[in-house]
Amino acid sequence: METTKKIYAGDVRSASRLIRDLEDKLPQARPRLKQLFQHTGKSFIIGITGAPGAGKSTLTNALIGEFRKLNKTVGVLAVDPTSPFSGGAILGDRVRMLQHTEDEGVFIRSLATRGALGGLSQAAGDAIHVMEAMGKDVIIVETVGIGQQELDIIHHAHSVIVVLVPGMGDEIQTMKAGIMEIADVFAINKADRPGTKQLQTELTSLLSTSPLPTGSWRPPIVSIGNLYEPAGFVEKTAELMQKISDHHAHLLISGQLALRMERKALMEINDALRACILEPILNQLIESGELKSITQRVKNREADPYTEAEAIARRFLKSGEIL
Amino acid sequence: METTKKIYAGDVRSASRLIRDLEDKLPQARPRLKQLFQHTGKSFIIGITGAPGAGKSTLTNALIGEFRKLNKTVGVLAVDPTSPFSGGAILGDRVRMLQHTEDEGVFIRSLATRGALGGLSQAAGDAIHVMEAMGKDVIIVETVGIGQQELDIIHHAHSVIVVLVPGMGDEIQTMKAGIMEIADVFAINKADRPGTKQLQTELTSLLSTSPLPTGSWRPPIVSIGNLYEPAGFVEKTAELMQKISDHHAHLLISGQLALRMERKALMEINDALRACILEPILNQLIESGELKSITQRVKNREADPYTEAEAIARRFLKSGEIL
Repeated sequence: METTKKIYAGDVRSASRLIRDLEDKLPQARPRLKQLFQHTGKSFIIGITGAPGAGKSTLTNALIGEFRKLNKTVGVLAVDPTSPFSGGAILGDRVRMLQHTEDEGVFIRSLATRGALGGLSQAAGDAIHVMEAMGKDVIIVETVGIGQQELDIIHHAHSVIVVLVPGMGDEIQTMKAGIMEIADVFAINKADRPGTKQLQTELTSLLSTSPLPTGSWRPPIVSIGNLYEPAGFVEKTAELMQKISDHHAHLLISGQLALRMERKALMEINDALRACILEPILNQLIESGELKSITQRVKNREADPYTEAEAIARRFLKSGEIL
Repeated sequence: METTKKIYAGDVRSASRLIRDLEDKLPQARPRLKQLFQHTGKSFIIGITGAPGAGKSTLTNALIGEFRKLNKTVGVLAVDPTSPFSGGAILGDRVRMLQHTEDEGVFIRSLATRGALGGLSQAAGDAIHVMEAMGKDVIIVETVGIGQQELDIIHHAHSVIVVLVPGMGDEIQTMKAGIMEIADVFAINKADRPGTKQLQTELTSLLSTSPLPTGSWRPPIVSIGNLYEPAGFVEKTAELMQKISDHHAHLLISGQLALRMERKALMEINDALRACILEPILNQLIESGELKSITQRVKNREADPYTEAEAIARRFLKSGEIL
């Protein structure tokens, strides 16, 4: 049976290999992804983001359990942009700790960055498509941090959970400015800690003062206590599930889902243009040794980056007009 | 007097306008930057990064004071990738609070992201070049978070201070994996809080077990207490200054500075290629309305992003070979 058919049938080994081959940019990988593409777009994609230490993996783990109770198959993509050099080994360990690795209805993969020249959002988008083609009902994308590239990754999701913990300090206002725009549901984790009440109050006040059009979604806040007080934790996870489900219903009814799918498509096209235009040019400059000599000239102030880049653009682009 | 000459003379208004024009991508801005480029490369560039709430602005403020005592002129670039939609207004407020805005020897600017299509590292690089051309002795680049794009921005710096605070929780190991690679000096801020000792111990143990070649720099740790205990705070800031100065000396003596300048040049070329190749193509697709129709086709699964991007590549690129 060919690879793509195996993936439609949910075969873990074929899916894992394709994701890896896409990451490694092997030439046979992209045609397969193109074949798969028509079978994508049906999964519900949930993004989970927040600062390091916020307990995102614990929540992901709990959500997997909830979805499995409903007989939903789950794909999990853990993206770790904070380990650009360690190759995601630490994350790999963390993911392996999840209790669902033996469950056939759960497929877990992790991605880490591949150097400074970008492409992580593209790799995440590709991996999500493979999981969609496998027929996963729900895909959870977990990412660390709230920088620009993490936002790009989280834009692959339909519903976004932002995980906060009490006691983040003075700059929480600054942080909230960024996450207010992307959060569909807030989860306050470790809500047995001091500062929880203050965080809830601040967040509620910020949410109530945000100017929102009538009928639009107002992100609910779910406060989740200690993992080691199982009864309360399970109850709160169920509440979180309900809020995610409410948000999904809102997306469908309000027509927002179509807008999010459009934003997602736009980002995927942007990623693909980077991969099909900029990357081959960079690779050619690397192979010919030119990138090295240009770097030296720029470093020694014998040339400036823009004059060099414009010359490269003239060489590779058909028309001079667009410069 | 023409703009570039005014900038060499340190004129704040001309420099501010050029930075803004570069951000807004006005056509007259880039030729000016190209002219300035030969006058750049002489400033010492310090990066400050860490999670939201770590107290980076407080440290930046203190370092400005220390450098001013030494009669060094200072440029500060505050980059806020966490506020992609708020346009950096909150950051602007924070920056205005700094006590050095009346000092002619200090030039402070802030940058925020401009939408999802990238370019923040490029904008940061451009702004740094303008400050270098102004003749600033020291440029401090402050950025929030430790995601990939923040790492790109921090690569514009020669020495990187990573600011930590006690009590970040279990995932600190994960976070450290990323920052271990970029930190030249660690500052533990709010070191009067519980958990400081534990953080120091963890960090020291991690540093001592990292395999480093002989003679290489081992990042020192400076623990800084409460801003409101002025005597201790000033003493610790002076210690931080000493460590930064030690690191600068190490960069010069070991030849590492040349390597960092090379890495910086490489990143600037990458940014410029994006600006000169990918951006004009995207702009043309936006203006012609094609990007909209491609997005619809991809959203409706009538097309896949890679097939579309390959077609665009064939249309704009001279040779078919590099696909």
